[in-house]
Amino acid sequence: MTDRTCLSIVLAAGEGTRMKSMRPKVLHEVAGLSMVGHVLRAVAEAGGTAAAVVVGPDREDVAAEARRLKPDASIHVQSERLGTAHAVLHAESEIARGFDDVIVAFGDTPLVTSETFARLRAALADGAAVAVLGFEAADPFGYGRLVMEGGALAAIVEEKEASAAQRTITLCNGGLMALAGGTALPLLKSIGNANAKGEFYLTDAVALARAEGLSTAVVLAPEEEVRGVNDRLQLAEVEAIAQARLRAAAMRGGVTMTAPETVFLAFDTQFGRDVTLEPHVVFGPGVAVADDVTIRAYSHLAGCVVDRGAIIGPFARIRPKSRIGEKVHIGNFVEVNRTTMAAKAEANHLAYLGDATIGEGTNIGAGTITCNFDGADKHPTVIGRDVFVGSNSTLVAPLTIGDEVLIAAGSTITLDAKEGALVFGRAKQAGLPGRGAEMIRANKVRRAARKAKEEAAKG
Amino acid sequence: MTDRTCLSIVLAAGEGTRMKSMRPKVLHEVAGLSMVGHVLRAVAEAGGTAAAVVVGPDREDVAAEARRLKPDASIHVQSERLGTAHAVLHAESEIARGFDDVIVAFGDTPLVTSETFARLRAALADGAAVAVLGFEAADPFGYGRLVMEGGALAAIVEEKEASAAQRTITLCNGGLMALAGGTALPLLKSIGNANAKGEFYLTDAVALARAEGLSTAVVLAPEEEVRGVNDRLQLAEVEAIAQARLRAAAMRGGVTMTAPETVFLAFDTQFGRDVTLEPHVVFGPGVAVADDVTIRAYSHLAGCVVDRGAIIGPFARIRPKSRIGEKVHIGNFVEVNRTTMAAKAEANHLAYLGDATIGEGTNIGAGTITCNFDGADKHPTVIGRDVFVGSNSTLVAPLTIGDEVLIAAGSTITLDAKEGALVFGRAKQAGLPGRGAEMIRANKVRRAARKAKEEAAKG
Amino acid sequence: MTDRTCLSIVLAAGEGTRMKSMRPKVLHEVAGLSMVGHVLRAVAEAGGTAAAVVVGPDREDVAAEARRLKPDASIHVQSERLGTAHAVLHAESEIARGFDDVIVAFGDTPLVTSETFARLRAALADGAAVAVLGFEAADPFGYGRLVMEGGALAAIVEEKEASAAQRTITLCNGGLMALAGGTALPLLKSIGNANAKGEFYLTDAVALARAEGLSTAVVLAPEEEVRGVNDRLQLAEVEAIAQARLRAAAMRGGVTMTAPETVFLAFDTQFGRDVTLEPHVVFGPGVAVADDVTIRAYSHLAGCVVDRGAIIGPFARIRPKSRIGEKVHIGNFVEVNRTTMAAKAEANHLAYLGDATIGEGTNIGAGTITCNFDGADKHPTVIGRDVFVGSNSTLVAPLTIGDEVLIAAGSTITLDAKEGALVFGRAKQAGLPGRGAEMIRANKVRRAARKAKEEAAKG
Repeated sequence: MTDRTCLSIVLAAGEGTRMKSMRPKVLHEVAGLSMVGHVLRAVAEAGGTAAAVVVGPDREDVAAEARRLKPDASIHVQSERLGTAHAVLHAESEIARGFDDVIVAFGDTPLVTSETFARLRAALADGAAVAVLGFEAADPFGYGRLVMEGGALAAIVEEKEASAAQRTITLCNGGLMALAGGTALPLLKSIGNANAKGEFYLTDAVALARAEGLSTAVVLAPEEEVRGVNDRLQLAEVEAIAQARLRAAAMRGGVTMTAPETVFLAFDTQFGRDVTLEPHVVFGPGVAVADDVTIRAYSHLAGCVVDRGAIIGPFARIRPKSRIGEKVHIGNFVEVNRTTMAAKAEANHLAYLGDATIGEGTNIGAGTITCNFDGADKHPTVIGRDVFVGSNSTLVAPLTIGDEVLIAAGSTITLDAKEGALVFGRAKQAGLPGRGAEMIRANKVRRAARKAKEEAAKG
Repeated sequence: MTDRTCLSIVLAAGEGTRMKSMRPKVLHEVAGLSMVGHVLRAVAEAGGTAAAVVVGPDREDVAAEARRLKPDASIHVQSERLGTAHAVLHAESEIARGFDDVIVAFGDTPLVTSETFARLRAALADGAAVAVLGFEAADPFGYGRLVMEGGALAAIVEEKEASAAQRTITLCNGGLMALAGGTALPLLKSIGNANAKGEFYLTDAVALARAEGLSTAVVLAPEEEVRGVNDRLQLAEVEAIAQARLRAAAMRGGVTMTAPETVFLAFDTQFGRDVTLEPHVVFGPGVAVADDVTIRAYSHLAGCVVDRGAIIGPFARIRPKSRIGEKVHIGNFVEVNRTTMAAKAEANHLAYLGDATIGEGTNIGAGTITCNFDGADKHPTVIGRDVFVGSNSTLVAPLTIGDEVLIAAGSTITLDAKEGALVFGRAKQAGLPGRGAEMIRANKVRRAARKAKEEAAKG
Repeated sequence: MTDRTCLSIVLAAGEGTRMKSMRPKVLHEVAGLSMVGHVLRAVAEAGGTAAAVVVGPDREDVAAEARRLKPDASIHVQSERLGTAHAVLHAESEIARGFDDVIVAFGDTPLVTSETFARLRAALADGAAVAVLGFEAADPFGYGRLVMEGGALAAIVEEKEASAAQRTITLCNGGLMALAGGTALPLLKSIGNANAKGEFYLTDAVALARAEGLSTAVVLAPEEEVRGVNDRLQLAEVEAIAQARLRAAAMRGGVTMTAPETVFLAFDTQFGRDVTLEPHVVFGPGVAVADDVTIRAYSHLAGCVVDRGAIIGPFARIRPKSRIGEKVHIGNFVEVNRTTMAAKAEANHLAYLGDATIGEGTNIGAGTITCNFDGADKHPTVIGRDVFVGSNSTLVAPLTIGDEVLIAAGSTITLDAKEGALVFGRAKQAGLPGRGAEMIRANKVRRAARKAKEEAAKG
């Protein structure tokens, strides 16, 4: 990586009216991360040493998200909308601090990769004062055209102002721009607003740079990468592209997906080798899956670590702050929440494990519930190794169960159990001969009568 | 909307042999509604004042579905299959009542929109005696061609009877036809069967109208819209188109779908703004979702209302006659059936709530079951506000639980609980020191012995 | 079918480095069956009377899978990799036994159909000494080209060795080859390794056969069918093609799928007519579904038989060795494992049924758990007809419940119940007036205090 310093200015003040949302556009998520978060992440990976984020007025939420990803980001509030160059100049004080490279990125184009940002910076290192991200448009209509002269970028011309000849150009402006730090401020300030809308257009920097005898460059990216999001249909399209990238990377790394198109990953999902994902698996952010793990259909994981050889699902939900140990089995209709399961522990059927610590080799019976919430606070359940928790057990936290305890099925356990104990908390069985059949037959008669009545009402 | 009267004749007598089904073709469903239902709904939305449905013999099921959607629809049984014009004339008595417009539609083309029906009617209002729905076919082979002369529709020519020149025509017959009420009957009756199959073809109405000096018109629709269904592959294709339309409309209205291709809507699903749908959500008919609702992955909803700010799922099922109040949380592996939950009530984990009324702020613990069925009848469970139902509770209906009651975890509750009570229905815990470890160690030995035996049997 | 004898030689020694897997490539699965299993199955269906499988060293797992599908398959270990002809000659002893037809197939091309293998054999029956599977490549780059002379196959030329003219050929080598048994061995042995890599190429058999005056033939297949798998992306693509085939066949046979693209079948899934599959259904191997069955969304079935008129799901899991009787209902969050349910039995909500036999008309209440595992062994639960198992019951196996028994809700049952009995195993309800409200209000105060503290910590 270069040792040049770099300021990234992320324009994130757009209102996003077509999103029809109370949430600002750049906070809508793609693969589990806000769009502005994707941009900040990519520029940081490309060596962005500082970031300035331009937000709309009263958008503390956008500022907070920017700081979450880049704690030292400077925030600049744009109150008036007078064009992209005007927006960029809100970060004038940052630019003035003196960086080798200044990148201008947009908070609603989350698919631009760190490689692309790095290539823009490389163009500056190679001597360009202005480097523009271009793409070959399948249909250039509506895009700004990159006008080349003698192999160099001469200007960016908007659709409306393009001549008939310029309209045939398919090389278009992808929006992103990199400016050499030394000339960035004078160039940006020289941009005027003598145009139909009276706005200050960042794109004018190209022609102005050329007029100053400065060098300009174009860096090419696939059209897909520069996609912006203006409404929820486009958001879904961008999500689909992001998912396709994440899935392909996972498969190339040694993950089997029976049906990749039904599996949804987060931007940060990590996989070992020989991981198998059945159809219909969903990952929230913050999941790391080790080698040889099988995640069966309809499993939902977020914020957890799954160790080597574990088998999850089908129909399992692993929630944040959970750790699934080596060779653990989590079966169907099981929820695991803020819970650690040591190696070879099992919870195979219908269970809720919340705020629990489960020891090695312990078997959690079907229907087991940890009662971790008392209406006010959450309490822990600590279960030792080689414990057998009988089915339909109710474990009232705070609770500590020692090693090798056996809890009888159907028990409600409210008191700690010492190592090695057999504990019960259930009633004895009793019976009334013949009474069951009487009731069942009476029910049959009543059911038949009810159905006949319902039929009569219909007909 | 026009004040012209309109009769829609829906041909729904097709046998649908290629469906390989005991169910008549037009009752197969698309987006949760029968195909004939879609047609009746679209013509009604286009101002169809009356409907006549032509059904096959002994097809009371089709008649019932038609009446369900349009109670005053007249039903006409077609016993012999002598062609489309013959089918239409089964509704002769209805046509004779005198309508401004007569629309002929097909029960197996569920994608025709009400806008298209309205445009056909508009063509009649503009003076056409016969208006035909046409489409530009990507591959016209097999379709009837619309032969234009001097800008007007001269005739519809079937593939077999088309000249080489006519076969190059790509403007094809979409099947639907609108007839001016005044001339409809004489025109239909003038159609003969002097053709290879000896059938009466509705399409002949065009040439006959022209011969009478009447005006004809073509209304264009996308090819997709006129798709008919003849087998289950085509049914799936039509479903896919219907789903794509419904999803796009929802997203345009302000719904976020991470993965629209995995979300299945019903024809009548309603959404507020800022609704978020995670992947793999399925809607049955009759669901209305208010603003700011989040429906997480693998949720299945039908026949219910979800109020503002509620959070549903993942793995939640909301069944008909349920109402989910404001800011209610329904979590994983929870089924809600004919149940009303007031604002801020929660049921976060593994529960069955049937025929229940849950008060504001009440917390339903994990594993709670309402025992609403006694083998004959369903009984209600009424729970007040701010109640805390401990986990793994069994609530035997009919049952009334007052406000601010606390039910201890693991209880079976068969008697009503007064406001403010603490109620128990569980056994006390007991224990045998050391006995658990003895049993667990003995089990280990037995398990090891069994596994060794199994291995030996294999090898 | 022909009565010619046939030896299939399946080359399954590839290392599959690009799979990045500890598992050998040919054991990766498509539609629930290993790739080599698909090949063995297809050649057997095409009348392959004998099979020889060439495996890599220390690949007992591949040999075991081959024997699982074809118990009399001969296994040949290839230690050195000196080309395809060298691999084939590992089965020399088998070829020498004398077969009419010898087919050479590849363990990593699982999509070749039995019809295609049969057509290759038919080409031998028609007199060819060598028949090659060809396909028209959309992009022939990288494939061996089939050079035709006077309507006959003259040679197969690899990309590298092809002339400019030959490179324009789009008819390519699909890899499979069939050899007339009488000339197979001398032909194979005459193949030399005088080429750049010093390997023995099976493709040379064509030119050698022609030089001997023997007849050669090309059998055409779609490009899709000859797809090989080299990495997990290609595995997913091949899976997608296999699924598309299986779904289309099911729909043509009378299965409705709302969303076929979300339904995953196994290679051997069987369906009756008028089966309805909602979205997001997954089948493991070994499932047979009878007529008029509805399988609702998010259901997961493997190794089970579902009888006529049953309704499964949503969110149901049926595991191997289970039989779901006529008109049985299995509802949401229910797991059925090694369990037989007789006609009209129901388990509608949150239940685990393992190692159970359930009688006709029996109703299993919500939350019922069969405790089939005691920590060492699995034990049976046998429940008679017309039994009513109350909700949240815990049934401790081994257990026998007679006909018409009624089990009270919330019971733990450890002892057998005689026919007609009413059985209880639960505590009586008790209450403390006013105490619940005290606790709930105190909890509210604590909760509010905690939240205030958390807010303060954040801000």
